[in-house]
Amino acid sequence: MAGSSFGTIFRITTWGETHGAGVGVVVDGCPAGLALCEEDIQEYLDRRKPGQSRYTTQRKEGDKVSILSGVFEGKTTGTPISMVVYNENQRSKDYSNIMDIYRPGHADYTYDMKYGFRDYRGGGRSSGRETIGRVAAGAVAAKLLKELGIHISSYAKVIAGIGICQQNFDEKEIWKNPFYMPDADAAAKVQERAEQAMKELDSVGGIIECVITGVKPGIGDPAFDKLSAQLGKAVLSIGAVKGFEIGDGFGTAFARGSQNNDEFAMKDGEITKITNHSGGVLGGISDGSPIIFRAAVKPTPSIARTQNTVNKDGQDVEIKIRGRHDPMIVPRAVVVVESMAAITILDGILKNMSATLENVKKIYE
Amino acid sequence: MAGSSFGTIFRITTWGETHGAGVGVVVDGCPAGLALCEEDIQEYLDRRKPGQSRYTTQRKEGDKVSILSGVFEGKTTGTPISMVVYNENQRSKDYSNIMDIYRPGHADYTYDMKYGFRDYRGGGRSSGRETIGRVAAGAVAAKLLKELGIHISSYAKVIAGIGICQQNFDEKEIWKNPFYMPDADAAAKVQERAEQAMKELDSVGGIIECVITGVKPGIGDPAFDKLSAQLGKAVLSIGAVKGFEIGDGFGTAFARGSQNNDEFAMKDGEITKITNHSGGVLGGISDGSPIIFRAAVKPTPSIARTQNTVNKDGQDVEIKIRGRHDPMIVPRAVVVVESMAAITILDGILKNMSATLENVKKIYE
Amino acid sequence: MAGSSFGTIFRITTWGETHGAGVGVVVDGCPAGLALCEEDIQEYLDRRKPGQSRYTTQRKEGDKVSILSGVFEGKTTGTPISMVVYNENQRSKDYSNIMDIYRPGHADYTYDMKYGFRDYRGGGRSSGRETIGRVAAGAVAAKLLKELGIHISSYAKVIAGIGICQQNFDEKEIWKNPFYMPDADAAAKVQERAEQAMKELDSVGGIIECVITGVKPGIGDPAFDKLSAQLGKAVLSIGAVKGFEIGDGFGTAFARGSQNNDEFAMKDGEITKITNHSGGVLGGISDGSPIIFRAAVKPTPSIARTQNTVNKDGQDVEIKIRGRHDPMIVPRAVVVVESMAAITILDGILKNMSATLENVKKIYE
Amino acid sequence: MAGSSFGTIFRITTWGETHGAGVGVVVDGCPAGLALCEEDIQEYLDRRKPGQSRYTTQRKEGDKVSILSGVFEGKTTGTPISMVVYNENQRSKDYSNIMDIYRPGHADYTYDMKYGFRDYRGGGRSSGRETIGRVAAGAVAAKLLKELGIHISSYAKVIAGIGICQQNFDEKEIWKNPFYMPDADAAAKVQERAEQAMKELDSVGGIIECVITGVKPGIGDPAFDKLSAQLGKAVLSIGAVKGFEIGDGFGTAFARGSQNNDEFAMKDGEITKITNHSGGVLGGISDGSPIIFRAAVKPTPSIARTQNTVNKDGQDVEIKIRGRHDPMIVPRAVVVVESMAAITILDGILKNMSATLENVKKIYE
Repeated sequence: MAGSSFGTIFRITTWGETHGAGVGVVVDGCPAGLALCEEDIQEYLDRRKPGQSRYTTQRKEGDKVSILSGVFEGKTTGTPISMVVYNENQRSKDYSNIMDIYRPGHADYTYDMKYGFRDYRGGGRSSGRETIGRVAAGAVAAKLLKELGIHISSYAKVIAGIGICQQNFDEKEIWKNPFYMPDADAAAKVQERAEQAMKELDSVGGIIECVITGVKPGIGDPAFDKLSAQLGKAVLSIGAVKGFEIGDGFGTAFARGSQNNDEFAMKDGEITKITNHSGGVLGGISDGSPIIFRAAVKPTPSIARTQNTVNKDGQDVEIKIRGRHDPMIVPRAVVVVESMAAITILDGILKNMSATLENVKKIYE
Repeated sequence: MAGSSFGTIFRITTWGETHGAGVGVVVDGCPAGLALCEEDIQEYLDRRKPGQSRYTTQRKEGDKVSILSGVFEGKTTGTPISMVVYNENQRSKDYSNIMDIYRPGHADYTYDMKYGFRDYRGGGRSSGRETIGRVAAGAVAAKLLKELGIHISSYAKVIAGIGICQQNFDEKEIWKNPFYMPDADAAAKVQERAEQAMKELDSVGGIIECVITGVKPGIGDPAFDKLSAQLGKAVLSIGAVKGFEIGDGFGTAFARGSQNNDEFAMKDGEITKITNHSGGVLGGISDGSPIIFRAAVKPTPSIARTQNTVNKDGQDVEIKIRGRHDPMIVPRAVVVVESMAAITILDGILKNMSATLENVKKIYE
Repeated sequence: MAGSSFGTIFRITTWGETHGAGVGVVVDGCPAGLALCEEDIQEYLDRRKPGQSRYTTQRKEGDKVSILSGVFEGKTTGTPISMVVYNENQRSKDYSNIMDIYRPGHADYTYDMKYGFRDYRGGGRSSGRETIGRVAAGAVAAKLLKELGIHISSYAKVIAGIGICQQNFDEKEIWKNPFYMPDADAAAKVQERAEQAMKELDSVGGIIECVITGVKPGIGDPAFDKLSAQLGKAVLSIGAVKGFEIGDGFGTAFARGSQNNDEFAMKDGEITKITNHSGGVLGGISDGSPIIFRAAVKPTPSIARTQNTVNKDGQDVEIKIRGRHDPMIVPRAVVVVESMAAITILDGILKNMSATLENVKKIYE
Repeated sequence: MAGSSFGTIFRITTWGETHGAGVGVVVDGCPAGLALCEEDIQEYLDRRKPGQSRYTTQRKEGDKVSILSGVFEGKTTGTPISMVVYNENQRSKDYSNIMDIYRPGHADYTYDMKYGFRDYRGGGRSSGRETIGRVAAGAVAAKLLKELGIHISSYAKVIAGIGICQQNFDEKEIWKNPFYMPDADAAAKVQERAEQAMKELDSVGGIIECVITGVKPGIGDPAFDKLSAQLGKAVLSIGAVKGFEIGDGFGTAFARGSQNNDEFAMKDGEITKITNHSGGVLGGISDGSPIIFRAAVKPTPSIARTQNTVNKDGQDVEIKIRGRHDPMIVPRAVVVVESMAAITILDGILKNMSATLENVKKIYE
């Protein structure tokens, strides 16, 4: 079944395997007239590319994007935008140690069960490289959102058990440490823990937080297409994400209604919320407060230790995964989360355009 | 934008407001030949209906379901199954105290911002009664899954800060206390806390857990339609849900790769996983282990205390919500979570049918 | 597979069988703020209801519509509009002569092949009554289009081989004869032919034409969602329709490019087309001229003559269809074609809202 | 709005402009395990490539396809198949004579009205080159259908007013003349007419017929997704197609029910239809007879004659289109029609897999 598309009006379709010819995305439904060039995309891709620090894989890949269609004279034309990153790392390698073996924590086994066989080179479609298409599309969405006054900030909130301290929060710091953490102290501690884990041939997990400001009230649909549900799907569809929460999230389970309800109040002639336990979404629709959500990211399953597993012939075997792997997924996933958020919010805004007859008349007449 | 549908092959569309003529659902794409009658549906609806205990609203509604189409001579025909529950509680009431006021924690404000006005009677479409359609459809899905050997169990894991103790877990207990908790001791403590909260004119939140057994490996799609992402969307689209996690969920953020990876091993000639940190889904595809996920449910926003808020004319006002409201959402939401899970799993199984040419030939030839 | 929905933003889902509890439709995605009441719907339904003349079936059914949701204080709320017509004709009849027999020209055989069995009462889901949901939804769409200055006119162009004469075209005449023909002379001749066919226990076919005025240029999408393709699907999905053409249609096959191209010219300061061979659509997008298309409607398959056929046990048998059947489908299908056109055009207009960044800013800012 | 995708389970997304970097398609949802290589695709593309005869454009383009993903070790993996044809004809040309002028019969004007501007080079997205993606995807679908015993044959039935004679029908002849006509005599006459039209700086239209054999009964869905409606949309979405009919099509409008009904009869122990007026589809579902439909194709709008038109500044101007253009669209469109048919039939077969609980059990258990 087709499952490589996301979004309704702003709709993306990704394709590609990590060791095939390349990976890419087709963005269909982008409004015409947005100034766009390859540099806009590259800036986002560079945030997820390998080799940025010793805490991400040391593979060397330029991940240079090409726009193949949908942009003319520097502007989107309204027709599909096809973008591709050709794989440099395509050389024929020796996969004999993994082609028949099911790596723990990976999708090898499940792909074989579903499709009967799989592209075993580097994880094939289930590799993190699949997210390149998401980030390229996210860059387009984020650029358009900027034109509407919407800003998305995402960062590591927790890595290896070390969380940021809200008092130390400094957005500029995000860009200064290899972990995309807005707290220099926390980042330093993460570095220690990471070194320790690497020494022990192990990997660590974490939590990414995303804050979206500038979203007006009214975005998102009742019932199944609640903005929170769409964001949840967007983020949970990223390979290593195992949890999603919005606003107070799992904390609401322990709260009283009187604590969790956000009271409304007039402020400078505007309706505002005094608190933001809701995370910017009420009844599935944006309430004008910043949208805040978190994603739990599991530790990299590729670890250098010897692990027990089985092969496809049904024999118990040991596996030792070779090659250079990220000791943590979080830093490179930060921009992926941000991209999926941008795509979801933009799609929500476009879907909301026809919410009222008044809006319809504003465009049609 | 249309947003009242969920699922692709097994697709449901819900409709209705709490104080309109009724609420209902159209289930399209249900395979033909499933034995189905109104009792099958009613059994599920009775688990969410009001008035089951003093910890759910005391409103009296029979919530009797009628099947209007798609079933003939006791079997589904393959055509749309339309089901309706007519509202008994339609009497014209005095809404003057809420029609212009934005209740904290409710969707009143966001609906007004989106649509320009709203059906203010009892929350209209944003009311919990919208879930009746989900549960009716879920009953159909669950019945079909049973034919495939799949069983879904859901229950309250935490209410008002009181969690079940894994050693005390007793599935039969779920049906014996008003909280659908599989731990009698925990349920007793919840009762105390609930009484306390009610006395203080307040409400409490909780966590629902869902365990699905019998799902074979291979269900779910790579990329955006991962089974975990679909389950996440399904569950996050339920009114009061603010968080979703699968397997170890947010716990993975604090784990090492060596702890979080589930090793494979041969057992009785079958490939199995020694542990189930993944919650039954690897790379978005079912891995044969039980699928386990949790949903965070916020406290009922309708509380009897006086709250500060604003009205639609932009004045600061106080509101005191009258009427009978659930002091907690969790118990009645248990079957809603179970229903959304059933719909998602069934849709995943149907989508998987065309995964291989071999399967296609098996049906076509 | 779910296949009972049509449209993307303005999306309808129909349900129901001719001899079940009723037939209905859920309209999801209708913009909020449209004045709507049951009379608006009833007016359309009355144009397709049986018993209007001796050239349509003499069954007596009031076809009274109820709106169950989505309308509050006389206006659409933006949430799903559920509409139902309960069947009066539900009495248990003797179907022994058709339950096992495949009527020629009907879907009995194909339903059995697809689903393994079928609701044999009066054709079940494949009955013309399925179109009630379409017409109810079409009435909503047409009302909204009227607010945008768009008018749809449809009528019989050919019945029983008798075509209207363009010189005699009189729109008012449509409402004066039982055939919805805009030419009194042609209608008189049709009457003769119809009487003849009825005497011979036979039925006749025809062509419906539809003209949509007031559609501005720019509606419809390139590639697969061309306005012409969407209209084609909409109309070809009506039970008895076997052909669709837009503008000069099949005539273009016999034309030269110099004849078929519509030259543009300035007129009163506006860009206009001198001719309209395109039927108002160029490259799949509306060009500002009236949209003109035609649908070929086959003769009623239920005829009173004895026909040869087989039964489900694989025996050659004779069948004589009892009961009151329309000697022609065209007159009652006119409003169905009009309804499908209205739904398609409205959906196209809503989809076009996000075509440019300029439009997006107009609504969002 | 996204509109560049077609199909539900077997879903294709095309992209690209005629003078951009290339054109391509992503095929999502192709079952795993189909043997596939670039030659399979190239064979289809070669049937639509320019320069095959003097009756198609003399532009030289190799149209070499590359498969970028979704195929591993010679078989489809179940993940998206990305295919691309890079444009050779990308050289910067002088477009000053058309960039501001609306060519009659083309989409220049409507694109400008929709998007505010357009890629004016050679028609951009509205060029016939958009169909390359359809044909590449169609080749995949057709290859899979062959495995199921389904064969699709398409050919020119009418060109320039010359129709084939059913008695002369010879399938092998299709491949022997430049018009893909199964009648040598008709082809000879078409050649004369074509020469005449070219001499007069004009173009001609025609009709393509498509016959699909081997489709078992039961494919297609009731209501909106009738197989006939899906085929209609598929074919009407091809640039120059202005009409579609299935079986007796517009002829049914002139027939009696007794003539148009296909009687069933037992033949060699199988239920068969004596005639095939239905064109293989009853009630929207395949009936086991060959599926037969026709598409009306307009004459090439690019003609060498001087034509009157307007420019985007609202001035009346004359235009003389330079360059090498096909004097007829039909021959190169034959394989496009065939491709869209293959995609539609395959999608229908995959959608039908879940029609019955029995089928579901056959795959799941």
